[in-house]
Amino acid sequence: MTAQPELLAGPMVAGHFKAAFGNHPAGVAIVTARGLTGPVGLTASSVSSVSAEPPVLSFSLSSRTGSAAEIAAAETFVVHLLTADNLDLARIFSRSGSGNFGSGRFTGSMNWTWLESGEPLLLDASRALRCRVLSRTPAGDSVLIAASVLEIQHGTAAGSPLVYHSRMFHALGAGSVL
Amino acid sequence: MTAQPELLAGPMVAGHFKAAFGNHPAGVAIVTARGLTGPVGLTASSVSSVSAEPPVLSFSLSSRTGSAAEIAAAETFVVHLLTADNLDLARIFSRSGSGNFGSGRFTGSMNWTWLESGEPLLLDASRALRCRVLSRTPAGDSVLIAASVLEIQHGTAAGSPLVYHSRMFHALGAGSVL
Repeated sequence: MTAQPELLAGPMVAGHFKAAFGNHPAGVAIVTARGLTGPVGLTASSVSSVSAEPPVLSFSLSSRTGSAAEIAAAETFVVHLLTADNLDLARIFSRSGSGNFGSGRFTGSMNWTWLESGEPLLLDASRALRCRVLSRTPAGDSVLIAASVLEIQHGTAAGSPLVYHSRMFHALGAGSVL
Repeated sequence: MTAQPELLAGPMVAGHFKAAFGNHPAGVAIVTARGLTGPVGLTASSVSSVSAEPPVLSFSLSSRTGSAAEIAAAETFVVHLLTADNLDLARIFSRSGSGNFGSGRFTGSMNWTWLESGEPLLLDASRALRCRVLSRTPAGDSVLIAASVLEIQHGTAAGSPLVYHSRMFHALGAGSVL
């Protein structure tokens, strides 16, 4: 037990909050859904397991515009968990700029298909989980989503674990083990 | 566009869900609260930013017993975001065994204090966020929690980013950048 530490409150919190989470590493996923005019998708570093039985995951969307708004409104979507082999996908779906938003990301050489159930599936992602929304918790311009996993594709693609940290991508390996 | 891929449904989903998230890397945090008989805490790899303005985070607890149940019932708690310098803390608070559960983790050489607001603070964790619960979403034996950040301590401790993956801890560094 020591002297009382100083904690910051009030308007200081938001800036320090951003700095703290900017330095908090996370796995990388892409969430896709059927949007208003075609497939939409974005890279998310907030996907997390909530429960294995029943299988439930969570993620958050930090905007109420564009692809994020269309995914937030969707009843079903696909969460793709990425490895370092999927680095190109992670970059394409995290890039901003009108040409790369929403359905623009699904053109050209993107290897994808519509599932019979109606969602876009990225065929090069090693693991894909088709989900149905359970709850949406709004917070400012963001929304926290909990979703039931209905179906799963556990690909054989190995690949090093992919981590996002401080605006850079990292791969885990034998050299990073503590 | 290619042939329809095979997705697994039904009882196969839970096992593949565990395997998929067992391979999904995550940052490491410790959540502490005032429990029924003293301080309680546990290591969580599900802490994520939801919104910066207002500052809101989320995490899930995978059990409704012991420390997890006491944290799930708390109105306020402290989320400590860890670096590789905090590896010992991460291990102590993730260890099972009756002697290490709950308040047993706060004895001996643990460097902690009660905040004036009533929650236990780990003084060696580089960043600490005092939170108030916003919502609890139950799923099986688990619960997904969204919480407002009330106060923040942004320590000067640098340390490499700490990642949990497949039951091992990793540190990010120049060698892991892609």
